[in-house]
Amino acid sequence: MQDRLARVRADVQAELDRATGTLPDGDLSRAMRYAVQGGKRLRASLVMESARLHGVPDDAALPVAAAVEALHAYSLVHDDLPSMDDDDLRRGQPTVHVRWTEATAILAGDALQALAFELLADARIGTAEARLRLVAALAQASGARGMVWGQALDIAAETAGTPLDLEAITRLQGGKTGALIRFAATAGPLIAGDDPAAMDRYADALGLAFQIADDILDVTGSEAATGKRVGKDAGAGKATFVSLLGLPGAQAEARRLAEVADGALRDYGAAAGNLRALSRFVIERDT
Amino acid sequence: MQDRLARVRADVQAELDRATGTLPDGDLSRAMRYAVQGGKRLRASLVMESARLHGVPDDAALPVAAAVEALHAYSLVHDDLPSMDDDDLRRGQPTVHVRWTEATAILAGDALQALAFELLADARIGTAEARLRLVAALAQASGARGMVWGQALDIAAETAGTPLDLEAITRLQGGKTGALIRFAATAGPLIAGDDPAAMDRYADALGLAFQIADDILDVTGSEAATGKRVGKDAGAGKATFVSLLGLPGAQAEARRLAEVADGALRDYGAAAGNLRALSRFVIERDT
Repeated sequence: MQDRLARVRADVQAELDRATGTLPDGDLSRAMRYAVQGGKRLRASLVMESARLHGVPDDAALPVAAAVEALHAYSLVHDDLPSMDDDDLRRGQPTVHVRWTEATAILAGDALQALAFELLADARIGTAEARLRLVAALAQASGARGMVWGQALDIAAETAGTPLDLEAITRLQGGKTGALIRFAATAGPLIAGDDPAAMDRYADALGLAFQIADDILDVTGSEAATGKRVGKDAGAGKATFVSLLGLPGAQAEARRLAEVADGALRDYGAAAGNLRALSRFVIERDT
Repeated sequence: MQDRLARVRADVQAELDRATGTLPDGDLSRAMRYAVQGGKRLRASLVMESARLHGVPDDAALPVAAAVEALHAYSLVHDDLPSMDDDDLRRGQPTVHVRWTEATAILAGDALQALAFELLADARIGTAEARLRLVAALAQASGARGMVWGQALDIAAETAGTPLDLEAITRLQGGKTGALIRFAATAGPLIAGDDPAAMDRYADALGLAFQIADDILDVTGSEAATGKRVGKDAGAGKATFVSLLGLPGAQAEARRLAEVADGALRDYGAAAGNLRALSRFVIERDT
């Protein structure tokens, strides 16, 4: 599995380098290339494994994996902005607006979003119908009903200063991080034209487990390992899964959700081994 | 032609209202609906006329017209941000970050971009191949080789404080405003699967004429008519087509380009009457 993850990381980086390598030179393209470096590539790995499980060749899935990472990178660049989460460290490096300017960070994020949709139009992926299903799914997952909606709720809650309850945080994270994870996990059935229901259930549990693990790492993790500031949420008095469930309670819930995720894969049998390894990785990671 | 423009305005507004009307309530969806109100709807009109000229029914073209206006609205919301052009007035109303916050303006722009691609996936438009051609074309037109690239050049020139020459401004505007106008004007052939070469030539000339007219209005126009601040570029010592060509020179060049645009439509004959009227509208408008 570690080999497979390393291979996906190298392949998706090469694909992103190819997609951004011939852009006109300048701060914009440099900031875009900078923003798509590094990261765990969890979403790309979900795309690749989901594709493999549905008989989609790696070459066909790769532009989709690159697209979801470009989309994710745009969301990080914008979320890190001073008027949003105001973060100065990401993936162990200065954030884009610190390294360049706010204007460049906004524009690089905007262009990375466009790049994500450009990548989904790539003929290597498959039929026009398959690519169009991906376009529609990514637009919905990333927009005002999904990722951006979750981020807007998060900002609103922080501004209001009233900590959210468990139900509200679960809904919020279902948008903010869950929607894109669901897109990645259902990419295989979407390309193949298969029923995405089982992958949907897997992704819903995995996405929440991922966010709980993130909240745990904000308390127990190090900046060296995570590459971003830790202890920020607790410092800001922000409600998280850890503040609401306690550390042992959050750890138990993440493990339970990883089991729910694995359970959703039952009908796939042994073929889903890599996706089961991914759910273990999600809750055991220190990064 | 005025009737046709008014009809397009009403239809595209209804389509945008429909697309944003069922979003979860909150600042995000309110800001999105606010941002897609009003405007000349030049790009939507280009889509509708280009479609009609290529035998594409109005109903099929309407989601594309709404998509290009959603994309355009996102670009205005982001360009108006304090770290970009820092504008407080747009379409006669406070800009989104003034009415709400910077965070809401960034997120509303982000979600409007996603909405544009969601609209292009609409089955009413036509075959999956046709919709995919539009997705690829809009992603390229709006990204790091097109619109966002032009805006980045504009910001860089302003930061550097060295006014651009005519060739540089022409290239910059070819990205900043030209690329999206080209997308709109070629939407008809893209949907129909026709050769877009003539519409491409029409759009290149029209886009530049449009920008020159914009620079002229920044000098001769009123805030009441344009709905935005005027005299900003001259005040900032920014190079524009007017500062480089003089007012009469810029007016002559806009008229010349409108004729070039009309010339590109020659083979369409009388059927292109509305597109010829649009090029006159572009250079004669006071708004």
